[in-house]
Amino acid sequence: MKQNEVSRATMGRIPTYLRYLKDHIHTTENISATTLAQQLHLGEVQVRKDLNAVSGAGRPKTGYNIKALIAALERFVGCDEKSSVVIVGAGKLGRALLDYRGFGDYGLEILAAFDAAVDAVGQSNSGKPIHPMCDFAGFCARNAVKIGIITVPASDAQQVADLLVENGIRGIWCFAPCTLNVPPEIPVQYENMALSLAYLNSKIISGESL
Amino acid sequence: MKQNEVSRATMGRIPTYLRYLKDHIHTTENISATTLAQQLHLGEVQVRKDLNAVSGAGRPKTGYNIKALIAALERFVGCDEKSSVVIVGAGKLGRALLDYRGFGDYGLEILAAFDAAVDAVGQSNSGKPIHPMCDFAGFCARNAVKIGIITVPASDAQQVADLLVENGIRGIWCFAPCTLNVPPEIPVQYENMALSLAYLNSKIISGESL
Repeated sequence: MKQNEVSRATMGRIPTYLRYLKDHIHTTENISATTLAQQLHLGEVQVRKDLNAVSGAGRPKTGYNIKALIAALERFVGCDEKSSVVIVGAGKLGRALLDYRGFGDYGLEILAAFDAAVDAVGQSNSGKPIHPMCDFAGFCARNAVKIGIITVPASDAQQVADLLVENGIRGIWCFAPCTLNVPPEIPVQYENMALSLAYLNSKIISGESL
Repeated sequence: MKQNEVSRATMGRIPTYLRYLKDHIHTTENISATTLAQQLHLGEVQVRKDLNAVSGAGRPKTGYNIKALIAALERFVGCDEKSSVVIVGAGKLGRALLDYRGFGDYGLEILAAFDAAVDAVGQSNSGKPIHPMCDFAGFCARNAVKIGIITVPASDAQQVADLLVENGIRGIWCFAPCTLNVPPEIPVQYENMALSLAYLNSKIISGESL
């Protein structure tokens, strides 16, 4: 699988490439890695490497056909197949994710949120359903839910993870600051907001000491 | 600087180490990399490498003094010095970040949010101030604000970034799906929620095809 050869850093640049390419799909037919690198303030070697890993080499002088490149990048990040996602924990973060519109670009559809503090089905600002936990198993079975997002406090996260696994979820995105015990075939991606900010801070600190 | 030698993956494990160590600070004086690896379900080589990069090698047989290791890890992620942070864009995500309590562990303090749709100072659920934009310059000057978080729509993000730079901010955490033009000495960290989820999805897909 190509996926395995590509770093998260490359994955991180793909939306930038896609955004630029889609903005220019009607103005030009082909684009070179050099142009992309210049326009996006990225290193040319890096852009070449990224595109090569995802889509193969561009043609000499012509570069890449924009439409074909967009299709390759989209296939790569998985937006050619729709994946159903649910959220457990409808606090502020859970609701922000539920109403976030950017997921569709990657073929990801957040169907609903679930919350232990909810008694009857309600709605988010954008009209997405928020269910009580008792609806969880039935909902997952009916909708072939593939990914579960955990936005409950750390103390409840393992219990939620167990429930997700029991109901056939194949991957977990965890915002709770904890380490989950799940079967090895279930990938877990931890999102630590504080760490991201701390990482930025460490870059500022190390820049200052240069 | 040690910071430069350490990957983001290592940074990502530091909170896990810190959580475990703080939970055990009263039960044991020393801890070995082997024990840490076993307890946290991590590879021993990886744990040794991480701790070695941040704190130097442990003592043979004894391992690491827990208190000294915590201090080294905390210093490394920057929580020995307080850094002031503001948010521009007090929508759902901005408010979720404003009220998120995990930042304090890293010496990061989110002081306030600012929003163009706000006319007078208000409050978040946790009591943090939400200011109109006209307060921005004065607030930054008075509070020596170091980091700015952008949680406005992509169309407004560049304008906000310019404002942050004008007001002396030294690093930007950007949640808007866009690429910012800022002076090269200002590090920008892009957070693309959709991409994180897409990356998890790509891991599920590549696991299935093994």
